[in-house]
Order: sequence, then C-alpha cells, then structure tokens
Amino acid sequence: MSALIVAGGTVSDELLVQEAKHADCIIAADRGLEALERIERYPHIIVGDFDSASGETIAHLEQYASQGVRVVRLIPEKDDTDTEAALQLAFAHSTGDIVILGGTGSRLDHVLGNISILGQGLERGRRVFLEDTHNRIRIINSNITLHRKNLYGPYISLFPYGDRAVGVTLQGFKYPLEQATMEGFTSLGVSNELVDETGEIHIKQGALIVIEARD
Amino acid sequence: MSALIVAGGTVSDELLVQEAKHADCIIAADRGLEALERIERYPHIIVGDFDSASGETIAHLEQYASQGVRVVRLIPEKDDTDTEAALQLAFAHSTGDIVILGGTGSRLDHVLGNISILGQGLERGRRVFLEDTHNRIRIINSNITLHRKNLYGPYISLFPYGDRAVGVTLQGFKYPLEQATMEGFTSLGVSNELVDETGEIHIKQGALIVIEARD
Repeated sequence: MSALIVAGGTVSDELLVQEAKHADCIIAADRGLEALERIERYPHIIVGDFDSASGETIAHLEQYASQGVRVVRLIPEKDDTDTEAALQLAFAHSTGDIVILGGTGSRLDHVLGNISILGQGLERGRRVFLEDTHNRIRIINSNITLHRKNLYGPYISLFPYGDRAVGVTLQGFKYPLEQATMEGFTSLGVSNELVDETGEIHIKQGALIVIEARD
Repeated sequence: MSALIVAGGTVSDELLVQEAKHADCIIAADRGLEALERIERYPHIIVGDFDSASGETIAHLEQYASQGVRVVRLIPEKDDTDTEAALQLAFAHSTGDIVILGGTGSRLDHVLGNISILGQGLERGRRVFLEDTHNRIRIINSNITLHRKNLYGPYISLFPYGDRAVGVTLQGFKYPLEQATMEGFTSLGVSNELVDETGEIHIKQGALIVIEARD
C-alpha cells in the first residue's frame, strides 16, 4: 500500500496524473490540494495550516470533509512543515513506498528542508522519494541496486546525509568508488553515470542522499 | 575587488546586469558564457570543458582569446565541476566578495554540489554567495549580523553544513535559538524571519548554510 504526498511547490500535472494512478493513499499538503484540483482528483487526506491557501480552497475544505476526506488542520506557528506532517500521516496510513511531489521549486530552503525529511523513512525501513520532472531523490543507509532501465535519468549523484557516509562502494558506475568516506557537503559524488546494466551502491555506516536526474 | 561567476544554470538577465555592474572580475563558467552574450557583456575569464556548449560558442572562444579574454579549457573527465574551477580562479583574481549566478536550476544534484563549494571560502576568509532571483545562499563559520533593509527576502533558513553546527544562537528572529546544536540535515531552521531591525547569528563550532529567500 503506497502513498502519494502532494505538497505546495511546483507540480507537473503529467507527473501527478501518473503517480496518482499507482497510489493507494493520496495526501494533499496545504496548497498541494490545488494541484489535485487541477487534475480533478480527490485526496484521501488533506493536511495543512492553509496560511497560504486561497479563500476558495478554504471554503472547499468543509465540502471535502462532508464527502469523507479527512481534513487535518495544523496550527500555523509550528516547528515542522506541512509536508513533514503529511509524511507522518503517510507512515501511519500506508505500508509501502511514499512519493512526495511538489516538494521542490524555486525556494531552495524548502527544497533542502524536504530533502532532510526523507531521512525519516530510514528508521522505519520505509522508502520515501522526492520527485519532480527532473529529479528523483531518496536517502539510503543500506545497499541498493539500480537498474539502468528503471533509472529516472542518466545522472546519479551522491551526497552524504548528516554526519558522514563510510565505506561507500560504487560498482557499475563510470566513476567507481571503493570504501570511500564522504563527509559533510561535497561535490565528489556529483553527476556519476551507470556504465553497466545495473549499478551497486554499498554503504557501511551513515546515510547517502541519492539523486537520479535528467536534463 | 569583487568577482562574479556566471555558471551554466538558470540565469536571470536582470539579476545578471545588476551584478555585473558591481563586479571587478567576471568569470564565465562553461554555458554561463551564453548568458553574458545575451546581455552583451564580456567576461575577463572563460573557463570550462565546453562539453555542453553550442558549436557557435566554441567558434567564439578563439575570438574571445584574441580580444584579451583569458580562456581556460578543462579536460572533460575531471573530479571538480566547471563552477568549482571558476571559483578557484575567482579566489586567485579577486580579493573581495564572490557571487555565483547560474549555479541553481532544475538539476538538484548541481544545486547541492554548488552549495557545497561555497564552503571553500571559509578557510580563505572569503565570502561566497550563490544567488538566483529567489535565493541568496552563503556559508558561515563565525558570527554575522543581518540588517532587515539589506535582506534578500523575508525568509531566513539555516542548515548545518558538514558535520554539525554547535552553539547556534539567533537574536532578533521570530523563532530564536540559544546555544543550539544542529546536526545533519534538519528542517529545524527552515523559514525563520527577522522581527527586529537586525538579526544576530552566532555560531561557536562548525558551519551553517544561511539561505535568505523570497517567494
């Protein structure tokens, strides 16, 4: 049972339609509701403080509630973001992969904040993806295999998440690594590519941000 | 003596014209040259492997060189990026602030890579800014004062850079902090705001990514 979170950043209608097809549970975070309205798709849950939503959207909330959509209103002054609250709901209401759309856009503080919350899946053993039309971002703390035919785009970049990533080995990549330690932010892992049909990313300690990208 | 680096990501002509006015040394990194050509401004230095430049641009390189522009061609298979090479040239050819335009855009791997290289200014005691029309990003490892009238936008977000930031104190902010430790990626510091005319960011150990943002 997978979940789709639609947040208030830039959302491609085409990508949204495609992801909504596969999702068992759709959660609108704040202005993400407007993207779902554009493609005329009902969410199962709506969450947000709606401090940036249009008056029209607010008026719709009661109507949504009357039609069985669960509406969770947050207080505007809070430490965590609407997307973070949506992620907590996704953990509770689904058991499979979670995809976040609308978590990227022109505000880079939001983008970094949304990349950060991907790490919350690690302790739960859940895969959480942040996606837009150019990027698919995940955080891993154990070995994964990438298949070239399923890649989001030709470029694969790795950044340490948090303290450091230790024992990073890349096989099947243009620029392989062998038991490398990646610390802090670094541009060491930017724009790698697969040369084999599959690529192995091994990690011994810590966690890695993995970005598959296309131009 | 300040420097401006124009990289190959999204560049606003308006912002470019404005920043080029103040820069004593203008460095075009790879396709950043095309942005400068749009505003009909000559760089002092051109650097890149030009693996993604148009044939027309390549043809122009010799012409640029004949007119006194220094052209630095990098080998395409290299560990550091064109922007990173441009930054090294900026350190060597200027003594003041360095602004990077065109270091952001839809490829989030490039964005994270470019945020990472801002840290290279720290050991040299140089301020390096990554700017676009929505964000001004810097990395600090010592106390700074922000003046409300000079802010890039109303939102100020803080993320630890590298290992951790220790002893983070915020004064004059809507959400103050007192001797906080920020570790790894966290959304703790997203979207703060100034409430006073000036804001103080104090840090005892480590470094912070500071993002000033506007919608």
